[in-house]
Amino acid sequence: MTGTWRGRAAAVATLTFDVDAETPVLAHGRRYARHAMTMSHQAYGPEVGVPRLLDMLDELGVPATFFVPGWVAEQRPGLAARIAERGHEVAHHSYSHRAPTSMGEGEERADFERGLEVFARQGVEISGHRAAMWEATWLTSELVAEHGLLYDSSLMADDRPYRISTGAGEIVELPVHWSLDDWEQYAFLPQPHVGSVIEEPEKAERMWRAELDAMRHYGCLFNLTSHPFLTGRPARSLALRRLVEYALNCGDVEFLRCRDVATRAAGDATLVPRELEPPSVDPGTYPRE
Amino acid sequence: MTGTWRGRAAAVATLTFDVDAETPVLAHGRRYARHAMTMSHQAYGPEVGVPRLLDMLDELGVPATFFVPGWVAEQRPGLAARIAERGHEVAHHSYSHRAPTSMGEGEERADFERGLEVFARQGVEISGHRAAMWEATWLTSELVAEHGLLYDSSLMADDRPYRISTGAGEIVELPVHWSLDDWEQYAFLPQPHVGSVIEEPEKAERMWRAELDAMRHYGCLFNLTSHPFLTGRPARSLALRRLVEYALNCGDVEFLRCRDVATRAAGDATLVPRELEPPSVDPGTYPRE
Amino acid sequence: MTGTWRGRAAAVATLTFDVDAETPVLAHGRRYARHAMTMSHQAYGPEVGVPRLLDMLDELGVPATFFVPGWVAEQRPGLAARIAERGHEVAHHSYSHRAPTSMGEGEERADFERGLEVFARQGVEISGHRAAMWEATWLTSELVAEHGLLYDSSLMADDRPYRISTGAGEIVELPVHWSLDDWEQYAFLPQPHVGSVIEEPEKAERMWRAELDAMRHYGCLFNLTSHPFLTGRPARSLALRRLVEYALNCGDVEFLRCRDVATRAAGDATLVPRELEPPSVDPGTYPRE
Amino acid sequence: MTGTWRGRAAAVATLTFDVDAETPVLAHGRRYARHAMTMSHQAYGPEVGVPRLLDMLDELGVPATFFVPGWVAEQRPGLAARIAERGHEVAHHSYSHRAPTSMGEGEERADFERGLEVFARQGVEISGHRAAMWEATWLTSELVAEHGLLYDSSLMADDRPYRISTGAGEIVELPVHWSLDDWEQYAFLPQPHVGSVIEEPEKAERMWRAELDAMRHYGCLFNLTSHPFLTGRPARSLALRRLVEYALNCGDVEFLRCRDVATRAAGDATLVPRELEPPSVDPGTYPRE
Repeated sequence: MTGTWRGRAAAVATLTFDVDAETPVLAHGRRYARHAMTMSHQAYGPEVGVPRLLDMLDELGVPATFFVPGWVAEQRPGLAARIAERGHEVAHHSYSHRAPTSMGEGEERADFERGLEVFARQGVEISGHRAAMWEATWLTSELVAEHGLLYDSSLMADDRPYRISTGAGEIVELPVHWSLDDWEQYAFLPQPHVGSVIEEPEKAERMWRAELDAMRHYGCLFNLTSHPFLTGRPARSLALRRLVEYALNCGDVEFLRCRDVATRAAGDATLVPRELEPPSVDPGTYPRE
Repeated sequence: MTGTWRGRAAAVATLTFDVDAETPVLAHGRRYARHAMTMSHQAYGPEVGVPRLLDMLDELGVPATFFVPGWVAEQRPGLAARIAERGHEVAHHSYSHRAPTSMGEGEERADFERGLEVFARQGVEISGHRAAMWEATWLTSELVAEHGLLYDSSLMADDRPYRISTGAGEIVELPVHWSLDDWEQYAFLPQPHVGSVIEEPEKAERMWRAELDAMRHYGCLFNLTSHPFLTGRPARSLALRRLVEYALNCGDVEFLRCRDVATRAAGDATLVPRELEPPSVDPGTYPRE
Repeated sequence: MTGTWRGRAAAVATLTFDVDAETPVLAHGRRYARHAMTMSHQAYGPEVGVPRLLDMLDELGVPATFFVPGWVAEQRPGLAARIAERGHEVAHHSYSHRAPTSMGEGEERADFERGLEVFARQGVEISGHRAAMWEATWLTSELVAEHGLLYDSSLMADDRPYRISTGAGEIVELPVHWSLDDWEQYAFLPQPHVGSVIEEPEKAERMWRAELDAMRHYGCLFNLTSHPFLTGRPARSLALRRLVEYALNCGDVEFLRCRDVATRAAGDATLVPRELEPPSVDPGTYPRE
Repeated sequence: MTGTWRGRAAAVATLTFDVDAETPVLAHGRRYARHAMTMSHQAYGPEVGVPRLLDMLDELGVPATFFVPGWVAEQRPGLAARIAERGHEVAHHSYSHRAPTSMGEGEERADFERGLEVFARQGVEISGHRAAMWEATWLTSELVAEHGLLYDSSLMADDRPYRISTGAGEIVELPVHWSLDDWEQYAFLPQPHVGSVIEEPEKAERMWRAELDAMRHYGCLFNLTSHPFLTGRPARSLALRRLVEYALNCGDVEFLRCRDVATRAAGDATLVPRELEPPSVDPGTYPRE
């Protein structure tokens, strides 16, 4: 494949939905399974949010990528397949949604592979990965390459796709950012304590539209992360819809699934592969462990 | 009863007021009873907020539901009866306002029944329940059914009423949500530490109006939770009034007491009863207790 | 004195400035005296904020009340006198700005009296008191009465002045509220950790104007609390000035010093004295100490 | 040099960029070096933000000051020189970005000198200093004077430059403030926990424009602090650009590098040198250590 990752578009947009359901709460402690309200708050995502968003995407005629933890796909058989059948991409979002940075290397690998096995058993084709909480380690991109996936979408070193050279081969990184995430705008739970004030959907819409416009100016990847338990709520869905309609009206924004951007970026000779390396820190300079 | 829960309305609105008074603070620790300012901050709810809101509801001609902890009804005899006399519903909001998730099963049951006894002694008819802090356990809906109540209003698995099948019979759930709650917008206390920034009433009004509009689009239950110690303040009352006036002008929003929505939903054959079940979690996947 | 506290005004406005300087930080721990930046942040209040605000009040022609901790008056001799010479009221704001709720009764009394002695030595006449952090105990209003002061301004049980009957005589309460305070909108420090996001002055101005309008509707006391180290900053001063100009243009808002409102309220026979009492809590209901 | 620091301008503006890269996170604990996403989030600053901002400054034709920790200059050889070659000032921002208030005097001195040595080795001329996290101690300004630097920019006791007399000679302070910092508006990280809600660039732009206007009114130093890992993002860069364009259109705002303002202030006889002194606190008044 030749050409540049962006083609003729001023900016490329990837709508991504992290179908976390109960997992981010259970990762705080399995005792939260006792909390019926909290569980119901999370279940809203796959049960109400996903169908609503799928219908909306149909109406808008744009494709999206759904990052699903293996545990969620396992607990709700048929969920991942239904998403794929609607023409969207299903991608790997860990098994348990525990942050890789909270695990040892063996644990991270086991969780990664357990997730992949769920999708293999369900016959869902996987091309890419996003770390739980975006909390990738330096091992993460290597695991992605080693298991033959095309891309990762957890890092933030750029606002355009970049190629990463790992010991196990090359992958593409589709960078994310906190300012293009619905979590910081909408999430609120008292136990476990999540979020502070809850923002208006109109504020998020305005902020993301300004970012999209700036990314059209600079030629970036507008990689938006939404959570069905958050953005699946009525007014937030409609705000997302208005944002997509705005982007479509711009005429220079192309909506793609992550795997399609990654395929393009992998073949874009203008992108020079980078090698990732942790900064070297010594206890003399940074005494706090 | 036949027909659907929503009738011909695009959306049904339930104005609910949680008359918590001192209880959410005392639930943090009874030492706060020493804090005269904090106690006065909470007392404003029943003493200034409730009369102001009752007058406003009269002027608007809309009915509402007041969830009252038993402890509050006991400390302020006549409060619950006065609310009921104005044509509004009084509903059960625990005895002490301690979160069910912080109690064992025996404790939760005792607190639930102690609350009901207060209302029985005061001759106030109770049809529904809302868990303190919305922090229901899996036992909560069973307690509601077992004691012959019609509905609960603490869970978040949908944005329309749903029927729940429990071991003790069926109830209706009138779901709530953080984004339709004045607490996250307005609450602030340094000790115990509550809230972060304080939002403008106009922002809350705008956000709730957008949610109402979206719920008219999707056909939902607009179940708004306000606290008299918060929304009873001058500018916040007037913002709520403007919101209700807006809804009335829409022409397709019906205002009901919770018990009336629940009665309709209980008889709505299009709603299939759900069985609630905690997710099964194992320590291998989620090692943190 | 006869007549009602409000006279013919729709609302009465009291501009109050808490000249805390370094004290709220030192109350977190005297180790912060080592933090040169934090100390400079607080010193801005009396050194830059107070002169700027005094000039602004002159230009606007409105009187105000400055609550000054005794420690601050002591460290900066002449500060309290200069404020009083400009026609404003100086009032008692504790000695050390430690919260009364964090002290035993003996400690609270000692701190209260030590503050009064500073003003006595400086020949500054004191008529009223505001608790540090507004964190009054049930003893506080008694101390105010016992020392012959006219009013306290720390409680929140109403939005109009109220009369309090204490064992040591009667006082007037001029209630405050978090939503009429600049701290929650503007304060930020990393160590000690204070605040979250910093709001625009225009947002605070809009919120306070809406509250003023609502208080004109309901006939309340618009008792605004500002801190010179916060509101003394350039854009915030100008926002406060626009707010006052708006109020003056309303034509039905009267600006008074706290002592003048208190004198009126003390003689307002329509206000029935209240007796304050802590709620009685038992460990059976609230087991957490 | 004679004349006043402000010349004929209504306000002087200094655009300052703190090129912290990984250092503020590593100062929380060197274990964060394992967090690949967090490291990538910080690396965005020097790698994407700085080049973008340098181009933008060229287009706007305004000079700026870049505060760089020695560790960052060392890890990315050529970074500081490239900034200086574009006509901007590079200034000293500690070696490790650990807060001086968290170190003993010996440690603070060692870190200060280690930073200066990096710039000396790289041939980058240094005239001024800003403390990491602005967390200066009372020793900091003395270190600045002792090492022959012209100014410090970490304190907040004024909104105009001020002269400080230290035991080691005189320096100029160019005061900063939380409300003129992009960190409180934009920063967000879950581990280490940083920030709460993420604000719109338009809100920050509006707030800073209002401050600039007020500072033109009062004749102040508009000393804006931005971080390339935050403000280097697309929509935030464009918001900063609009702010600068607004200021240029005012016609009475002068953009200068910090060292130029400091040189002017050092020669401004209307500014009387101040001696800094910690407040004296005793354990009787402030018992908490």
